[in-house]
This record gives sequence, structure tokens and C-alpha cells, in this order.
Amino acid sequence: MNKFHLNSYLSSKRKLINNALGAIIENNSKDTKIKSAMEYSLMSGGKRLRPILCIAAAETVGSHLEDTMVAACAIEMIHTYSLIHDDLPAMDNDNLRRGRPTCHIKFDEATAILAGDALLTLAFEILSSVESVDKDHGFNRLRALHAIAMASGYKGMIEGQMQDISAEGNVLGIEDLKKMHRLKTGALIEASVIAGTILGNGNRDQIEKLNNYARNIGLAFQITDDILNVEGDPDIMGKDAGTDQARGKSTYPSIIGMKNSKEIAKKLVNDALKVLDYFDNKADPLRAIAHYIVNRNK
Amino acid sequence: MNKFHLNSYLSSKRKLINNALGAIIENNSKDTKIKSAMEYSLMSGGKRLRPILCIAAAETVGSHLEDTMVAACAIEMIHTYSLIHDDLPAMDNDNLRRGRPTCHIKFDEATAILAGDALLTLAFEILSSVESVDKDHGFNRLRALHAIAMASGYKGMIEGQMQDISAEGNVLGIEDLKKMHRLKTGALIEASVIAGTILGNGNRDQIEKLNNYARNIGLAFQITDDILNVEGDPDIMGKDAGTDQARGKSTYPSIIGMKNSKEIAKKLVNDALKVLDYFDNKADPLRAIAHYIVNRNK
Repeated sequence: MNKFHLNSYLSSKRKLINNALGAIIENNSKDTKIKSAMEYSLMSGGKRLRPILCIAAAETVGSHLEDTMVAACAIEMIHTYSLIHDDLPAMDNDNLRRGRPTCHIKFDEATAILAGDALLTLAFEILSSVESVDKDHGFNRLRALHAIAMASGYKGMIEGQMQDISAEGNVLGIEDLKKMHRLKTGALIEASVIAGTILGNGNRDQIEKLNNYARNIGLAFQITDDILNVEGDPDIMGKDAGTDQARGKSTYPSIIGMKNSKEIAKKLVNDALKVLDYFDNKADPLRAIAHYIVNRNK
Repeated sequence: MNKFHLNSYLSSKRKLINNALGAIIENNSKDTKIKSAMEYSLMSGGKRLRPILCIAAAETVGSHLEDTMVAACAIEMIHTYSLIHDDLPAMDNDNLRRGRPTCHIKFDEATAILAGDALLTLAFEILSSVESVDKDHGFNRLRALHAIAMASGYKGMIEGQMQDISAEGNVLGIEDLKKMHRLKTGALIEASVIAGTILGNGNRDQIEKLNNYARNIGLAFQITDDILNVEGDPDIMGKDAGTDQARGKSTYPSIIGMKNSKEIAKKLVNDALKVLDYFDNKADPLRAIAHYIVNRNK
């Protein structure tokens, strides 16, 4: 283990990301209902794991903080849009998210659908903003944007959500569940790391290595979510526990048991750490985050 | 008037666009429900006005058909996503679109929400695909993508839809209605022309001129839609007539009368044509489309 102080790293990055997100939304003189709804869901105190991974990956290979921060914000917008739409009555029909009423409860269903659409669109708007961007940077922006779009789309996160909906009430095999997790949660986590690596000017080898790291922690993250849904404290998580079982959702613990689930999550983290041996101490944040992924309580 | 044959132009471009759209969706071995829903709505025989405008603008200033076709397809995907979401029960609650059941009727509400999300995401995915794209082209791609994202977002098309929803049942003044039309329909029509001009390597002056053209035909287009909703033939339009009045929607005819509405639409088209005096006969498609905008019957 290293002496890296994860908590202060996470909180300082969270602050930077929250400031940047707030500035993007505020950067508009006119207050509109759609803006309020976007802001409400975006600024509701998430972990900011994906944007932090994006920044930590960029720091591992080099770093262009300005470009990377744009990608980090874009990724958090996409994550937030996916939560708003997943919470809708036609999907998971959730009333509570991060300890507060979900967007369609706080506003209304039409506004929540459009706020999600708007956050998804704004992610690509800020990523493609070419003010003070030269052609080399612009090209990296385009590559990062492409990775993020692919991960979020109908062969990535959206297909994961489709499978999640249609699987409700059916018992999945562990391989099908793994595939679904990789799409629904893993794809955007991978894209966060890849986008950061591209914008930090990482080379092909570094991208491949960090992609491998991200695949491992992405699955570990979702298995831990499954575990927390059984064992977690609703007050700390800001959402209900036991919902997976109540909905008849297949999860790692429901299929292979709690003990095996925890072992697999730990093995995935170890695999992720092994990949990082290739990098120097600039990868310490990524190392610490890998541990955090399975040891978090929300 | 020129001797340009609009109908054969429109139908040949439509064919190119439909082939390109079909190839993008088919370019995936696996058949999934989300793919079927995307395809169902995307390939349902729209006018393809926006992508045709994109291509015609590129042809006016130069032309890079390959790049332009990508942008044209992306724009049609965004247009289609906006229709799928507008049709949802929480919004306009429409059962019929282009003469067929709407996406949420044919599939289900969750699938329709996700199919819209997926088409929006796919638009940005294809625009940012950098295979066989050099850095200069890449930079133009990024600029075009930015224009499209801005037009589609919470200060553009989505804000227009928000205003449209909240205006239902209220009587708007003509200036508020004009603003709403400019956002809801005009913004993406403008972006189609701007994206085409950028990808056709147009200079700043050409972009400004064609933007002006697009602003005029964009509003003329929506006024004509308002008129067709009163006078149009449902069988030809593939959607019901009289729906605006039934919903208490403010429209150009309802506020300033049918005769004035038609005069304003014609004046806008004439203004658009005046702007095109700056260009040679490569702008003939744009000229003919301006006439078509107000003379169409669907």
C-alpha cells in the first residue's frame, strides 16, 4: 500500500469538478425551468467517481487539466442524465436519488425527460467547444468524445439499461449478468479512463493498459453496488437498500452468494492494481481509487 | 425562377441519405430490441429536409460529400430522437407519426425513451468518428458537431419544447410564438445549414450569409407547419390535422389569421432568396428548397 491520501485527493478533485460543473450551468444569464432541473440533478452531491477517474488517468500519463476537466464534466453530465432517465416511471420508477426526490418527482415527467436529454446534449456541446483549442488538441477532443459516445450509446450503457429492464423478474446466469454490468456501468467507467488518457496525451500502450485497469474496476464497482444493495446503510447511501431483491433483479450476491461476490470484487481490484505496475507513482490516485471502489460504503 | 429540378434533386438526395442511415444502423451484427426501435423510427420515410439542407449548403460553398453525409445523418438522428421524445405520453402523447404508430406505441415507453437517447448519442458518435479523418477535417467535424449540439440543447431545441409544453392552453403573443418556433424548429434547421457550410469548407462570410438564409426558411417552415395543421390533408401528411386547435396551441393562423400567416411565410422565403444572390448557381438547390418550404403539402 502507498501513503497516498485518498480522502483529501477525492475531496479536492470533487471541489474542482463541482466548481467547474456549476460554472458551466451558471454561464447563462437566463434562468429557465429546464436549467433548474438540470442543475438540481447535476449538483446533488454525487461521488463524482467517473470524472475523478478521468482526471486521475490524465495525471497518470501526463495531464492537460483544462481539457481533461471538460471531459470530466461531460462524463458526469452523461452519468446524471442516465440516472434521471433510469428513475422515470416507465423505467425503475424511483422516488429517491442521492437522498433527494428524483427529478420527475421534484419537477414533472416531461421536464425530467428533457433535462436528461439536455444534459446528454450539453456534454457533447462542451466537449466540442473549440474556443482556444488548437488542431492537435481538437483532434484529441474528438477522439475522447468518440470514446464517450460509443460507451454511452446503444452498444454500451443504453443496451445495458435495456437488458436490465428486460431481465427484471428473470434469473440470469452469471455470464449474462457480467455482460449486463459491463455495459450498464462498466462502459462509461472505461470511457472515463480512456478519455482522460487520450486528453493527457497518453500513447496507445498506455491507453490499452489503463483500459484494462478500467474494465476490472468497472465490474468491481458494480459488484460492490450489488453488495451494498444488500448490506449498505440507506442513510449513508442516500437511497433505499434491498431494492434489487424486491424487484427480483439478478445480482452477484443473489447468483453466487455474498462471500463469492466479495472475493471476485477483490480479485478484480488486484488485477487492476497489477496492470498499474507498468506506471510510476503518478498512478497512485488510480491505485487508491481501486481500493476505494470495493471498500466504499455508498 | 430557375430551371432546377427540385423533385429529382430531393428524391436522389433522400435515397443517398436513406442508404447512409440504413448502413449505419445495419453496421452491427447483433439484432437488439433497442436497435429495432431506433431503426423503426429513423427509417419511417420522413422528408429528410434537414439532412438535404446540410448537403445543399455544402454544395453551395464547395463540398466534401463524405463528411457532409455523416453530419446529414447525425442531424436526421437528432430530429428523429426529438420526435420520439415529443410523442411520449408525458409530452404530446401522440399515437401516430409519419402515418405509423409512434415508437412508444409500437414498442413500449421505456424502449422509446432509450431509443431516443440512443439516436441522440449515435449522432455524436458518428460525427466524432475519426477513421480516415485528418486533423483539418477533424477540426471541422468538431466545429460542426458543436453547432449541432448547441442548436439541439437547453438553449435551443429543448428549450423550445419546454416552452411549447408550458404554453399549451395559454394564448401567446406573436413575438413569444416566433421565439418558440425559432428554438423548437428553427435552431436545428439553422444548424443543418451551418454544419454543411463548415464541412463544405465555407468561409466566415459564407457561413454568416447561409445562417441568415436558414433563419428565414426555418421560421417559414414552422409557419407552414401551423398552416398545414389547419388546411392540410391528414392522408398526405401522415398525421392528424386540427391538433393544434384541439390542444389550445397558439399558432400563426390562430394569432394573426391565415392570410397574414401565408404572407409572412412568403416574405421570409423572399428574404432567404435575397441572401442567396451572393452565391452562384451552386445555390440553386437552396433556392428551390426555399420555395418548397412554403409550397409543400406535408
